Amino acid sequence: MGLVVAKFGGSSVADAASIRRVAKRVVDTKKAGNDVVVVVSAMGDTTDELLDLAHQVSANPPGREMDMLLTSGERISMALLAMAINDLGMEARSYTGSQAGLITDSSHGKARIVDVTPDRIQQAISENAIPIIAGFQGVARETKDITTLGRGGSDLTAVAIACALQADVCEIYTDVDGIFSADPRIAPKARQVPRITYDEMMELAAAGAKVLHLRCVEYAKRFNLPIHVRSSFSEKEGTFVIADLADQSQLVKLSKQGAVMEQPIIAGVAHDLGDAKITVVGVPDRPGMAAAIFQAIADSGVNMDMIVQNVSASGATATDLSFTVPRADAAKAELQLRKIQADLQFKDVETDENIAKVSLVGAGMRSHPGVSATFFKAIAAAGVNVEMISTSEIRISVVIRAEDAKTCVEAVHSAFGLDADGEAVVYGGTGR
Amino acid sequence: MGLVVAKFGGSSVADAASIRRVAKRVVDTKKAGNDVVVVVSAMGDTTDELLDLAHQVSANPPGREMDMLLTSGERISMALLAMAINDLGMEARSYTGSQAGLITDSSHGKARIVDVTPDRIQQAISENAIPIIAGFQGVARETKDITTLGRGGSDLTAVAIACALQADVCEIYTDVDGIFSADPRIAPKARQVPRITYDEMMELAAAGAKVLHLRCVEYAKRFNLPIHVRSSFSEKEGTFVIADLADQSQLVKLSKQGAVMEQPIIAGVAHDLGDAKITVVGVPDRPGMAAAIFQAIADSGVNMDMIVQNVSASGATATDLSFTVPRADAAKAELQLRKIQADLQFKDVETDENIAKVSLVGAGMRSHPGVSATFFKAIAAAGVNVEMISTSEIRISVVIRAEDAKTCVEAVHSAFGLDADGEAVVYGGTGR
Repeated sequence: MGLVVAKFGGSSVADAASIRRVAKRVVDTKKAGNDVVVVVSAMGDTTDELLDLAHQVSANPPGREMDMLLTSGERISMALLAMAINDLGMEARSYTGSQAGLITDSSHGKARIVDVTPDRIQQAISENAIPIIAGFQGVARETKDITTLGRGGSDLTAVAIACALQADVCEIYTDVDGIFSADPRIAPKARQVPRITYDEMMELAAAGAKVLHLRCVEYAKRFNLPIHVRSSFSEKEGTFVIADLADQSQLVKLSKQGAVMEQPIIAGVAHDLGDAKITVVGVPDRPGMAAAIFQAIADSGVNMDMIVQNVSASGATATDLSFTVPRADAAKAELQLRKIQADLQFKDVETDENIAKVSLVGAGMRSHPGVSATFFKAIAAAGVNVEMISTSEIRISVVIRAEDAKTCVEAVHSAFGLDADGEAVVYGGTGR
Repeated sequence: MGLVVAKFGGSSVADAASIRRVAKRVVDTKKAGNDVVVVVSAMGDTTDELLDLAHQVSANPPGREMDMLLTSGERISMALLAMAINDLGMEARSYTGSQAGLITDSSHGKARIVDVTPDRIQQAISENAIPIIAGFQGVARETKDITTLGRGGSDLTAVAIACALQADVCEIYTDVDGIFSADPRIAPKARQVPRITYDEMMELAAAGAKVLHLRCVEYAKRFNLPIHVRSSFSEKEGTFVIADLADQSQLVKLSKQGAVMEQPIIAGVAHDLGDAKITVVGVPDRPGMAAAIFQAIADSGVNMDMIVQNVSASGATATDLSFTVPRADAAKAELQLRKIQADLQFKDVETDENIAKVSLVGAGMRSHPGVSATFFKAIAAAGVNVEMISTSEIRISVVIRAEDAKTCVEAVHSAFGLDADGEAVVYGGTGR
């Protein structure tokens, strides 16, 4: 029928029994008439165990050697999966990132893909074998050293290979049924979303949703490659990530459900408990102060997210500046600010780690006024105090107290009629 | 001073503490003014654990995938060792067999080296870095697939790299002090041998000595590369394996002891408990019978070692034929013989797994008559019955009951004055 690239994460290949189960699934896909290319992550806790060993022998392991070490994890899982498939009577051959043609720059630990030359993979497909490719890894064009792609690297490998092979779909197998309208662990009424756009998925990923990483969605968007996020524990269809819900023509042969006619305004609610809020207090109200502060943070390699400058009280000579950073980087950012405190003459720096970010994402926001009003009304009705606000074309985010995260997500989820069982609240006449 | 290739086995890098200890040792060698290239095996039990996983997912894992799996073991140990060396302030870089230029044929699991092109290793040395090379593995010239070299593969890697780089010496680090005149576990009076020839070492290895593998000694002999077998737990000199004890000029800069003037007649006593004896009973006394039997065994891929045909009793029409095979292959060999029993009309096949082979090895045998007499006199005096005998130019081997192995080895060891404490029995006026 077509060419399917299927990626299985660490929890799907955690032990011998899981590997045999995945092998069965791959063989079934092949027997259904598809060409199949598999991408695997390292088994379960392998990466953590290797990291632990590295820190036992070195206080500061070089990136090149860390990449050499960590890439052994996929080597193990891919060889075992190839064996298990061969044991079921089909030929499978494993390939390292380098052998599969994943060419990267030489930024160890966070390499960027610069080219994909899957000649050996195409050769294997043409010989009716199932290629098993190590996720997360490549080889540097200049140095010929082994590299890793960083967080979400195996998903990125799968998408990059699928694009290079012009596959019909990239299936990302995980331990949940697909993309949910909120994190089911804090919003039990969250339901699985059958389709979502690249843009929505990218906003959700950036806003803290964990299932797919931003980089792999960006990559798929560039090549208009459908991603199918689904469970390795069931046969159910999961979530298709595509360009435009109004044009689902790509899905005709991929999805048994066919096109979904109703288009939701809201894709989902994401939350992120991994940030900290830093407030620079008493910044003199002079031009260039904010620029100097942001430059200092940038120089320390820390990414800022939401930024709010309090309106100066009339006649005041100083203002407060707040922004969020990854919690792990908060100390580094504060230290950097302390260094320039005397120069810039601001009063103090306050770090607040007890925050949550809640975001509402939906392509429908573009054309449906009133989404913001409903959003803030729901939060207010739940008694949750909003500390910071930021928006994009298809997203509204607020910073609130961490302990309010669950209340806030559930309130917003209900207000937009996303709850699985509850009555759908019709919004603007076109809701669900 | 020179270029040293140092190989550390699995027990030397079994855990983080051991790896840090090896790193210290490598750095010391470098600081003493040498260029150093390191070859490592997989950590401790890694290989066994990987084999266990393989058999959990497949009844009959393909060789290509088994090699992909097993080579992850060295990838882990070499990256960790490189990290540990970097942590001590010297630059180290790890290289897979493929990256180090170990080119092999494509016989998975027992590949033969067809070329060594260590360009990247030479580059690293010229940049004052310490290359850490994965032992046991290479890449197939034709298929570009990863291969392993089989038993003794890491030693072979070290020797092959040392030869290609024209190193001054290949140091093989192990958990004993060097080559011993017998296995100290069964002969407590065994002592470490300071020098031994390639030929003697090859005979000892073939006769069951475990420290160095035959293939690596053969390779070193071809390039006249000195091997230094020593302990990774002490600074003591170990055993140098060289071409000719009469010409020790190569050792002048390698050994603090300088040349050893006294040349021993006997290098050591080896024993092997891994064989079985197969006897084909009542073979009709006709030309071509032995050839037919040996061909059958060869066709089954089993290696025969010692062969004895009993002298036919005068007037008898049948004879008995005995030979030894690796115990693991005994059933296969017997089965093969049963298949041709009707055709060849021999009476029976008997397999005896309760045997030991004891061998005396020494280059001095060539020029010293009477070695055999002393050997058999010692065995007889110890009350041990000899069942089979075979000899080479520098070796005499006997097959005895397995339970007599210790008695026999100790008796022979004493008879040739090899005991560490006992009085040396002078043989032929030139003994030790």
